Amino acid sequence: MRSHSIVLRSVKNLKTRVTGLQGSAAFSKFSGNEGHYNGGEDNGEWKVRGAVFGSALAAGFAAFAADSNRRELLAEANTNVDVDKIIETTGARIEGLKEYSIAEVNKHDSPENRVWVTYKNGVYDITDFIPLHPGADKLLMAAGSSVEPFWAMYAVHLNNPVIYSMLEKYRIGNLDMADVASQAEQMASDSSDPYSTDPARHKAIIINSKKPFNGETPLGILTDSFITPTDLFYVRNHLPVPDVDVKNYELEVSGLGVKELNLSIDELKKFPKHKIVATVQCAGNRRAEMRATKNLKGLEWRGGAIGNAEWAGAKLCDVLKAAGLDENDEKIRHIHFEGLDTDPANSPYGASIPIEKATDPRGDVLLAYEMNGEPLNRDHGFPVRVIVPGVAGARNVKWLGRIIVSDVESDSHWQQNDYKGFNPSTDWDTVDFTKSPAIQDMPVTSSICSPAPGTKVTGGQELVVSGYAWSGGGRSIVRVDLTADGGKTWTQAESLEQDNARHPRHWGWTIWKGKVQVPEGVETAEVWSKAVDSSYNVQPESFSNIWNLRGVLSNAYCRLKLSVQ
Amino acid sequence: MRSHSIVLRSVKNLKTRVTGLQGSAAFSKFSGNEGHYNGGEDNGEWKVRGAVFGSALAAGFAAFAADSNRRELLAEANTNVDVDKIIETTGARIEGLKEYSIAEVNKHDSPENRVWVTYKNGVYDITDFIPLHPGADKLLMAAGSSVEPFWAMYAVHLNNPVIYSMLEKYRIGNLDMADVASQAEQMASDSSDPYSTDPARHKAIIINSKKPFNGETPLGILTDSFITPTDLFYVRNHLPVPDVDVKNYELEVSGLGVKELNLSIDELKKFPKHKIVATVQCAGNRRAEMRATKNLKGLEWRGGAIGNAEWAGAKLCDVLKAAGLDENDEKIRHIHFEGLDTDPANSPYGASIPIEKATDPRGDVLLAYEMNGEPLNRDHGFPVRVIVPGVAGARNVKWLGRIIVSDVESDSHWQQNDYKGFNPSTDWDTVDFTKSPAIQDMPVTSSICSPAPGTKVTGGQELVVSGYAWSGGGRSIVRVDLTADGGKTWTQAESLEQDNARHPRHWGWTIWKGKVQVPEGVETAEVWSKAVDSSYNVQPESFSNIWNLRGVLSNAYCRLKLSVQ
Repeated sequence: MRSHSIVLRSVKNLKTRVTGLQGSAAFSKFSGNEGHYNGGEDNGEWKVRGAVFGSALAAGFAAFAADSNRRELLAEANTNVDVDKIIETTGARIEGLKEYSIAEVNKHDSPENRVWVTYKNGVYDITDFIPLHPGADKLLMAAGSSVEPFWAMYAVHLNNPVIYSMLEKYRIGNLDMADVASQAEQMASDSSDPYSTDPARHKAIIINSKKPFNGETPLGILTDSFITPTDLFYVRNHLPVPDVDVKNYELEVSGLGVKELNLSIDELKKFPKHKIVATVQCAGNRRAEMRATKNLKGLEWRGGAIGNAEWAGAKLCDVLKAAGLDENDEKIRHIHFEGLDTDPANSPYGASIPIEKATDPRGDVLLAYEMNGEPLNRDHGFPVRVIVPGVAGARNVKWLGRIIVSDVESDSHWQQNDYKGFNPSTDWDTVDFTKSPAIQDMPVTSSICSPAPGTKVTGGQELVVSGYAWSGGGRSIVRVDLTADGGKTWTQAESLEQDNARHPRHWGWTIWKGKVQVPEGVETAEVWSKAVDSSYNVQPESFSNIWNLRGVLSNAYCRLKLSVQ
Repeated sequence: MRSHSIVLRSVKNLKTRVTGLQGSAAFSKFSGNEGHYNGGEDNGEWKVRGAVFGSALAAGFAAFAADSNRRELLAEANTNVDVDKIIETTGARIEGLKEYSIAEVNKHDSPENRVWVTYKNGVYDITDFIPLHPGADKLLMAAGSSVEPFWAMYAVHLNNPVIYSMLEKYRIGNLDMADVASQAEQMASDSSDPYSTDPARHKAIIINSKKPFNGETPLGILTDSFITPTDLFYVRNHLPVPDVDVKNYELEVSGLGVKELNLSIDELKKFPKHKIVATVQCAGNRRAEMRATKNLKGLEWRGGAIGNAEWAGAKLCDVLKAAGLDENDEKIRHIHFEGLDTDPANSPYGASIPIEKATDPRGDVLLAYEMNGEPLNRDHGFPVRVIVPGVAGARNVKWLGRIIVSDVESDSHWQQNDYKGFNPSTDWDTVDFTKSPAIQDMPVTSSICSPAPGTKVTGGQELVVSGYAWSGGGRSIVRVDLTADGGKTWTQAESLEQDNARHPRHWGWTIWKGKVQVPEGVETAEVWSKAVDSSYNVQPESFSNIWNLRGVLSNAYCRLKLSVQ
């Protein structure tokens, strides 16, 4: 199904995990901020001062994900680095170093044999770097060969001065001139950029990373309509967008206690068509606000990684029933979803949900083929994606290829080692992902979308404020409280626009509008929003006490800063 | 079913509601604190400066519910009042006042005819007081007669100097001596105290009000076992405990779209017996902590108005099915429960839950006849109570008499005008109970049960802390975070004892234990607990921003004060 091709090599020790080693001076050199960066990737894992975490994406050194602001970020880090020079010199021929042939390099394909890689003219022994690399298993795929095809996929590496500098620290020689030419030829003959076939996006989308593409709806337009227009709906991709030929598309259903089904799109459409209005939200939405408290790792979502759409498709429970699932079979515990988006090792994006959600007729889990009345577009999972309403976006797998019935959770990186919550004192040295459950239902949240931060207002003025609120698990929003004086007085949003779905199937968001009185005699003011859901759960007050190293579940009060005249 | 008898009179205008009048100086006299009192009643409604709220209990002037601390509270209110003198002189004969016969008093039985009542020797025209009285309809039941039988039921009035003083302000005359004797005789011949047949309670229970009985488990023993012993389980009664003769007991099932059933206990037991471990918690649990921020109305629950038991009984959905309920009938929206505990107007305690919860086979709503392996005891609802797991205690109706299928919510006081949440700026002048949904699922909470508040600890010491955590809606507890330094560093409770029920049927609580480091160089310290549930909802930080006039949903961080040596 993939239009791009990647040269894959057989790799030994793909599962090797290395843990517990100490941090890297090379890495620290560019951090300037305790090793935490802005603009990072959700989908990678990184290393600060100790443990290494497996990654299926190795996006890694998260600071420099977006080409556009790489220089600025580097400048912020207070380093005096000539970025152009680093990029230019990395992999350049260094006279006097030993020459190696690609055949010699090929032998160094595992930690046991030392791990060598090439980049342009350079040969590198990166064995000692492996424990420091986020996603050691992925790095090992390049063992004994060129890193260039992999960097084409994990595009965060390309032209990244941090990574280039680090690589040069492990330089041991030059690659034989003839082999350099041959490698370059090989790269040219490959479709070198797996992201080249990604679809075009709406100009209004704020780009948080290009490869993979991650973009959000600007807050200023996010709540203009109850249903988010498809083109403006945030996009959260973990890999290149697959280009699926729907004529050959088949959805495989298999696993524990079911007979295998292979459903064409037409066969899927024969199941009763079910429509729901549901909000999908990235588990990392509003991370930028949490980051403002203390730096952390992840994409800079400002609050626009959420949208509300009408989805239509077959009910997952109907399809599972057709496959003969016995939901009373105590062994069956989880339903896995695999995307058709794959990494260079051909391993797909994946996630799972508990059987209770999957088979609950009120759970409304859809195998959706329509969004807002149209076939899904490519960015949103064409031809079929899962909609798990009330649940973190990460489980709403796009470009759905397989459904697997299982006794255990998905072993996908994103299920096991990402998208989990921890307490504020858990850092990358102490985190144990096995100790925390994968995020499913999301907590109550709200965001102020209008006015914009920094808007000039007048003391004593009655200010109209609006935004969205949402809670997972089918819970509705019963109240949005607003204050402009730090909680001394609260008003209540007067208008709550939500659909009339009934508890516990309230999957859509709430657009709210209310008024606050701007305080007088101050230069700045903050308006806070605090949503309350139908379980009377309420947003926590501050990010500092819910801070977590991945910046997920960032649902504290929204605090909008205003300039008072 | 009731062992006590109350003289009931036919009353005109029972439904009269009077609203919007201004407050009472007499009332204010004793308030000393903006009209908010400690030790009040959950079950009444009161009046401060404006609106009047209907009440089925009229417990009213909430300050003085518990006989034991009435004097202390009065002292707190900074009034120089001779309590004994007030009690002694109220209703005493006042020479020179006009004499009225009971026949004359009888004529004044409605606001149109003026409302007169008698108390001992006194005749009172309380027409102008009606708008100020919480539960005007209940007060009108006494119109044209003696208040004494009503005060026997609404025992908060008895020997209450605030109420006695207020009454005397409306004094218009003396009752004819012969009629005084006749009234006294009448009272003596009635079973004058409807609470006299209440069961005995365990000595360890902390009494928050005697009549109706409300008592909680001391925190020091609350989490000694995962299953709370029945005798130590908190009791939250709204009325006298009915003394039900199980041989004559019948549970009526009726209403919209069902055939009427009248089930004896043996017939109920023929339905499949279903067992669950479920926590029941009063919606006002931990109110004392919220009150410490700012005064409010309600019983002084310290955190022990929660317990965890094994309940067994018929599933409500099975019984409704037997009555022919069509759960797809869009008209059917709510299931009402009526208790056999009734007020003097014979109106029962009542509540309702949404049809979605009632009919969800995973909702586990029980018509329970066993608690911890024994038949229910009288305080916990003998012979049958509803267990609505995950939902506020108030909906878990005890002494169940009727189940009614309906298109609307119960119109019971407790469903409509109590047990709802509001924002911190909503006061008794501005509250509109129609604007807020009845509490059903409860939010995530936790409490520190050990050590006791004020315990002397040593700076630098590693302190073991334990308590409970719970969330409504079937959500489990995934983490309890602890800090002893105001959130600078957090530890995580190492042990979480919970049952192995699966989401979303995790009805039981979690007993947790963890360690914190006591800070050094300080005289006092606070340990905070913060629970996180399986939707990753988290407790809010402070009570001030979730404060509400009824002191419900009091689920902010538990903050235990310690003395540091």
